[in-house]
Amino acid sequence: VRNVSVSSVGEFGLIERISNIVGPTSAVIGIGDDAAVIDRPGDFYLLAAVDMLVEGVHFRLATVEADELGRRAIEVNVSDIASMGGIPEYALVSLAMAPALRVSFVDDLYQGMVAAGRSHGAQIVGGNIASTEGPLIVDVTLFGSVAKGDLVTRVGAQIGDVLAVTGTLGDGAAARLLTDRGGSPPDPDLQSWIRRTRVPRARIVEGQALARAHLAHAMIDISDGLSGDVRHLCRASGVGAVLDERSLPISRGTAWASRELKLDPTEVALSGGEDYQLLVAMAEQDLSAAESLGVSLTVIGRVVPAARDIRALSENGSMRKLTGTGWEHF
Amino acid sequence: VRNVSVSSVGEFGLIERISNIVGPTSAVIGIGDDAAVIDRPGDFYLLAAVDMLVEGVHFRLATVEADELGRRAIEVNVSDIASMGGIPEYALVSLAMAPALRVSFVDDLYQGMVAAGRSHGAQIVGGNIASTEGPLIVDVTLFGSVAKGDLVTRVGAQIGDVLAVTGTLGDGAAARLLTDRGGSPPDPDLQSWIRRTRVPRARIVEGQALARAHLAHAMIDISDGLSGDVRHLCRASGVGAVLDERSLPISRGTAWASRELKLDPTEVALSGGEDYQLLVAMAEQDLSAAESLGVSLTVIGRVVPAARDIRALSENGSMRKLTGTGWEHF
Repeated sequence: VRNVSVSSVGEFGLIERISNIVGPTSAVIGIGDDAAVIDRPGDFYLLAAVDMLVEGVHFRLATVEADELGRRAIEVNVSDIASMGGIPEYALVSLAMAPALRVSFVDDLYQGMVAAGRSHGAQIVGGNIASTEGPLIVDVTLFGSVAKGDLVTRVGAQIGDVLAVTGTLGDGAAARLLTDRGGSPPDPDLQSWIRRTRVPRARIVEGQALARAHLAHAMIDISDGLSGDVRHLCRASGVGAVLDERSLPISRGTAWASRELKLDPTEVALSGGEDYQLLVAMAEQDLSAAESLGVSLTVIGRVVPAARDIRALSENGSMRKLTGTGWEHF
Repeated sequence: VRNVSVSSVGEFGLIERISNIVGPTSAVIGIGDDAAVIDRPGDFYLLAAVDMLVEGVHFRLATVEADELGRRAIEVNVSDIASMGGIPEYALVSLAMAPALRVSFVDDLYQGMVAAGRSHGAQIVGGNIASTEGPLIVDVTLFGSVAKGDLVTRVGAQIGDVLAVTGTLGDGAAARLLTDRGGSPPDPDLQSWIRRTRVPRARIVEGQALARAHLAHAMIDISDGLSGDVRHLCRASGVGAVLDERSLPISRGTAWASRELKLDPTEVALSGGEDYQLLVAMAEQDLSAAESLGVSLTVIGRVVPAARDIRALSENGSMRKLTGTGWEHF
């Protein structure tokens, strides 16, 4: 295997390989969850997450607004802290940029990061800048904390749990595909939907509420697409899942965009990626407690005994294997 | 200024701009030192540093060994923790790489990072991988801790202090320039010097010893070149400096390489960069205490009242202004 390319091993194959090389550590949670969890004296764990946005992969310089890119760079990391039930606190920002980049772009990028950070209570306290003739890279490391009794991870989903999600699914992908194609919808509601979805908003309040009330058995943020992230959560918990495709929450915007793009909105919701909603495994009887905390959830499936495949009940009532593994980088 | 390129503002101009946009934070030390310092309950501060290695800027794929690149990616960050008197603990590794990169390269890169981390007591606990068709990027965030009473920063150099450095200066630059030119020295001692200097070794033991014994008034790691880093330390401390060029510690290897490359070894030592030695401001009478702790230092100058320029006493006995600002990325 050593002589093949990383693309033939795939992102998650590579992560497994890296995890084996690194071996066991003294971290509470090391490689393999949304954020690393480090034990510290006192009542709180330290959380640390890193997420990189790469020009040409995650955004295009021609279409991105620097301020939006900055907000997004923070939000995707806050989302990783949210799924552990944590509180974001401090960020380090590492940039690689071309010498010819405008100062105004860097200004606006930081304005966006500062604004998004502030809205979540996080501050930028350091970083690094490097030059490159290659793509612009925005790499944010976010630190936070979580009360030791409140930590939620990917591990812990129990057979019989419901699987529920915040918000709607597929918006990130639908809006991106539409933007890449160019053109704007005539409906002002849809125009504002596109603007909103260009910058995801991490579900930090929901994540904390579910964690503090001890309602979530396991949690993950949906960054790779629902089908991939259901798989990640199930593998970590040693369980299986059956989804009900008829119950996937799909926004009016995603439905419209799917029609425009001639895509199946269910497929967009299942494998779109970049939604940054939370996927939660929890007891069915706790749904009303979540509701009363102000956390709106949609039940999309159920945890079943471990199986090789994630299954989904289709629109027509037939059961199929979910083959999508979600967004992979290679 | 907003409409010009980042290269015309320069790395340190850009950092100042970013620092203004970010504004004051609740961190003990935010942007502008080797590592961020965060207050935590208990006796220790949290330290966090990030350093990015970019293909084509910091290394070339054609000449780099993956294992060496990995060790270097860790060492340059450990050096940032060393200069604060800290203990490295946990690393997050963020990679951007081409789909065609060999798996063996990634394996060896991580083997190198794990080995270097282990030698300093630090573990890899997370990270991120992204694809890019651009240059390979290795971005490491390292966090650690320091006893609250032992923290050393760039601030605190006092007029009358001596300026002293660990090790020798210019080796990183001399070896890199020699490697880029190609060819190998006949002398086996010089060959082993090149191998050693390809991967810097962070002065973590020395940094901790000086900090714990409260011998260092101010400290910085020499990553941008001595003349630049003296300037950074002096500006932060609100003082000036006079260096004595005749006392700069220069290795036999750097002397030889400078001759081969037709460079002045003093210039290489002053502005080479990538040495990852420590520069310390301390009381002259504490030098023997440092020596008895096993910390070998060479006095290279003295702290004087604040002045616009850093001055240096040349080989011929005349005083000159040091114009070099050290390594800048733009």
